[in-house]
Amino acid sequence: MTTSSERMIEGVPGPGQIGRVAIGDVLRRTARRHPDRVAIVEGDRRATYRMLDDDANRFANYLLAQGLKPGDKVGCICANSTDFIPVIFGIHKAGLVWVPANAMLGVDDIDYIMRHAEVGHVVADDVLAAQPAMAEMLAKLGRPVTVIEVPGSPVPKGSLPYISFGAAIEGRSTVEPEVAIDERDLALIMYTSGTTSRPKGVMHCHLAVVMAAMSNSIEWQIGREDGVTGVLPLFHCAQHTVLLTTMMGGAKMHLMRGFDPAVMLEGLAAEGLTIMVGLPLMYRALLEHPLRKERSLHLRMCVYAMAPMPEPLMRRLLDEFCPDFRLSSGQTEMYPGTVMSRPERARLRFGNYWGESCIVNDTAIMDDDGNLLPPGKPGEIVHRGPNAMLGYYKQPEATAAARLHGWHHTGDIGVIDEHGELLFLDRKKDMIKSGGENVPSIKIEEVLLGHPDVQNAVVVGIPHARWGEAVTAFLVAKPGTEPTEESIVEHCRRQLGGFEVPKLVVFLEEMPMTATGKVRKTELRSRYAGHFEPA
Amino acid sequence: MTTSSERMIEGVPGPGQIGRVAIGDVLRRTARRHPDRVAIVEGDRRATYRMLDDDANRFANYLLAQGLKPGDKVGCICANSTDFIPVIFGIHKAGLVWVPANAMLGVDDIDYIMRHAEVGHVVADDVLAAQPAMAEMLAKLGRPVTVIEVPGSPVPKGSLPYISFGAAIEGRSTVEPEVAIDERDLALIMYTSGTTSRPKGVMHCHLAVVMAAMSNSIEWQIGREDGVTGVLPLFHCAQHTVLLTTMMGGAKMHLMRGFDPAVMLEGLAAEGLTIMVGLPLMYRALLEHPLRKERSLHLRMCVYAMAPMPEPLMRRLLDEFCPDFRLSSGQTEMYPGTVMSRPERARLRFGNYWGESCIVNDTAIMDDDGNLLPPGKPGEIVHRGPNAMLGYYKQPEATAAARLHGWHHTGDIGVIDEHGELLFLDRKKDMIKSGGENVPSIKIEEVLLGHPDVQNAVVVGIPHARWGEAVTAFLVAKPGTEPTEESIVEHCRRQLGGFEVPKLVVFLEEMPMTATGKVRKTELRSRYAGHFEPA
Repeated sequence: MTTSSERMIEGVPGPGQIGRVAIGDVLRRTARRHPDRVAIVEGDRRATYRMLDDDANRFANYLLAQGLKPGDKVGCICANSTDFIPVIFGIHKAGLVWVPANAMLGVDDIDYIMRHAEVGHVVADDVLAAQPAMAEMLAKLGRPVTVIEVPGSPVPKGSLPYISFGAAIEGRSTVEPEVAIDERDLALIMYTSGTTSRPKGVMHCHLAVVMAAMSNSIEWQIGREDGVTGVLPLFHCAQHTVLLTTMMGGAKMHLMRGFDPAVMLEGLAAEGLTIMVGLPLMYRALLEHPLRKERSLHLRMCVYAMAPMPEPLMRRLLDEFCPDFRLSSGQTEMYPGTVMSRPERARLRFGNYWGESCIVNDTAIMDDDGNLLPPGKPGEIVHRGPNAMLGYYKQPEATAAARLHGWHHTGDIGVIDEHGELLFLDRKKDMIKSGGENVPSIKIEEVLLGHPDVQNAVVVGIPHARWGEAVTAFLVAKPGTEPTEESIVEHCRRQLGGFEVPKLVVFLEEMPMTATGKVRKTELRSRYAGHFEPA
Repeated sequence: MTTSSERMIEGVPGPGQIGRVAIGDVLRRTARRHPDRVAIVEGDRRATYRMLDDDANRFANYLLAQGLKPGDKVGCICANSTDFIPVIFGIHKAGLVWVPANAMLGVDDIDYIMRHAEVGHVVADDVLAAQPAMAEMLAKLGRPVTVIEVPGSPVPKGSLPYISFGAAIEGRSTVEPEVAIDERDLALIMYTSGTTSRPKGVMHCHLAVVMAAMSNSIEWQIGREDGVTGVLPLFHCAQHTVLLTTMMGGAKMHLMRGFDPAVMLEGLAAEGLTIMVGLPLMYRALLEHPLRKERSLHLRMCVYAMAPMPEPLMRRLLDEFCPDFRLSSGQTEMYPGTVMSRPERARLRFGNYWGESCIVNDTAIMDDDGNLLPPGKPGEIVHRGPNAMLGYYKQPEATAAARLHGWHHTGDIGVIDEHGELLFLDRKKDMIKSGGENVPSIKIEEVLLGHPDVQNAVVVGIPHARWGEAVTAFLVAKPGTEPTEESIVEHCRRQLGGFEVPKLVVFLEEMPMTATGKVRKTELRSRYAGHFEPA
């Protein structure tokens, strides 16, 4: 690793550790300013900034005492908990690399991640109780294990030797270790689940993560008076960056281990939370919960992510839940938020209107030859900004492909309209070439979902002699209905061009899904690859 | 210069230009998001973000067409004007180094700065009309000169060939040049005027300046609805960082070429400005101006800098002018803000209470051996943070001294109290060692200023056999008064310890001052060095 003290500018050494940017500094600085302010509320537990910073320093000192060296990887298989926060910051303060796995993944995938990242230490929690095979896998992996003990969810004593988080930090110094960290040092590897392949390890440096959080802080104008939800998992980039954003503002976070609308409504009201970050389905559940009208909420801003919000739901939420809703889009590869919808246009723009670039990055549309396209022309959504990943761990080819022509390639197709707003069209690999035209699968899926008998719809392109790719629809019917192919095609004809209308409609009992809830389009494509006579 | 694309992390090249942090990106990103929003108001002129960004790109292309190469220096001798802004951003977008001189300095000092920095190009404005010797100096310097023409203030056509800013950018491309910029590349050299020596060139990289501005944005929760004053000179770090802060928020700045309380009050009211950044004397002038009560102001926050605010003035300002006043302290060496007072304590803490560290840096107190001191112990104020300078240009020894023990040394003596608030005591070199005790010159000066006949007071230590250094007071009496040494000493005895009471009182007609208004204490010290018998 190159450190900034080795970099020279006109014969003068750089500012080195004096001028570093490091994730751990965020917690320390807020702890110095507001030692006794509550940072995390989780059930009955309230942790101040000082408590979290002390525990993070203790855990950093523990890890270093185990012989881990800067740059070593520490795997985490944890859901949200107060103790998970000093674990994350402790790893960063020790100059180690955080490798969080999605704790809901199967044992095989987590095993793959831990081995691929070559972790030197593992932190787990009651996932060991929920998935007994996990302890077995970790025992085989043979790395030291620290366990965050969750009250009421004892970890079975089995073949796996481990030390509890409490025992690990017991008696350790609360003085932060002096470790040389450069802002371009690797800080985390976050694995994204693919629909077609093994998870890819997205590498980020300290600067990328801190810049993303500072950008959010500015966009959200977050301050000490704010309280923020912590319901999305911290092992994903969204909640992790929201955690840092919250800390920069000296605000507090209401941490939840999982989503429960009643518990969440109580928390929103009792803690006077002002900012919520969640999924559309969560907002729907809160809106429709009987407790909602009995509790007084103080939300000034709601951010949603991962999926568009149906227009009727959005209108109701704006009227009844919070006047300021924003879609924040991004991906693990561009530490979020990357693009955010304009709150003042929430009643004008719906669905896949993503909005405008956040202040930390540029967003543009690029054709396949690397030319940036003017407004109105669809192409691949590309970004530039310090929140861009360093690359995919051990995948130099995938890394090179992701930064072709000097921009980060998202794999998403979109268009920037005359108002400067980004409209997402489709994943690049899901775009169908039918009759010489580009057909976004999402556009056809939306039309299909408008059919009264359709519960779920997925559209892919299948090789076809005449069309090139034939638009092919896979449908799950609503319970108690039996829609026919004819009624579906007729429904589509009224709203779509001939090249867009499905050439084949297949009814399924259920969609093939990945562990993280993505449809396996590749499986559908390959299953029907020979259905039509190819060109 | 090392570029990030050359830095490697575990065999994967860094994100290079995709992930850079660069000052010019701030303007471009806001211009993309809000092209038609007004960024700068100056008299009758209103410039949108698009206009400024276009002009900055044109000027960058002009500079590069002159053969300037990345890393070359461009000197600026300019007061505030709308065109100065694309000049600054154009320099940065071209990968060049901005060298702003204080336009109020004498020709000799500016000549020194231009030669010391080895500028390859100079931008000036009607300073050429105000100081005829300036044109002569620039002619001798022999570098190409661009002149910002100020309406109503024609530049005399003399021996100096130059091109006007308008002519320079005429017909140039508005497309930003693709220049490789690394966030640790040198972005500016800002010369600080010393009281004892030639100005020192403080070097900052792109990252330092951007991080300082992002930190301010978060501290101030600045947004599109804000309007910010631009009355301090842009050639100083304070207003420059406020400009970037304003742009990050998509807000507007009301630019003034100099301070005029009536014009400023009209601007505050007419533009609905919400944030003012000024000097205590400006706030006093605005408060006392007859126009004030006739204009409706919308200020939500006032930041003051450079000098403490007298308590009675502060109380009146809080009651009558704006409910939120904050002292922002820093120095060119730590791009500001570095330390800021807490608004909620504005009625509890006065004078030299500087408050708490901003989120971008750590602040601590250090003894002469490099030990960090606990609360209550006075010592040198030191900082760490990415806003720390790269060093003093061509002064490796001064640079090394400024970063001894891994912290940036401010040369200020302070103490952190039990509330975590920083109290400034004195400049380190002005601290007097009397009878084995540390005596802050400022403390004695404040007592002296409390004497009814004292207009101005400066205190230094003079070598003395018994005291080590004898506290020595230099006073300017109020017009029409003739205070005696006895009455002064008697006044001090009532409030100070014996070792703190002046051992010599000297009455002066006026204080010896530098061009930027600092008292030449060194001159006073050396003039009286032999007054007492030394040890």
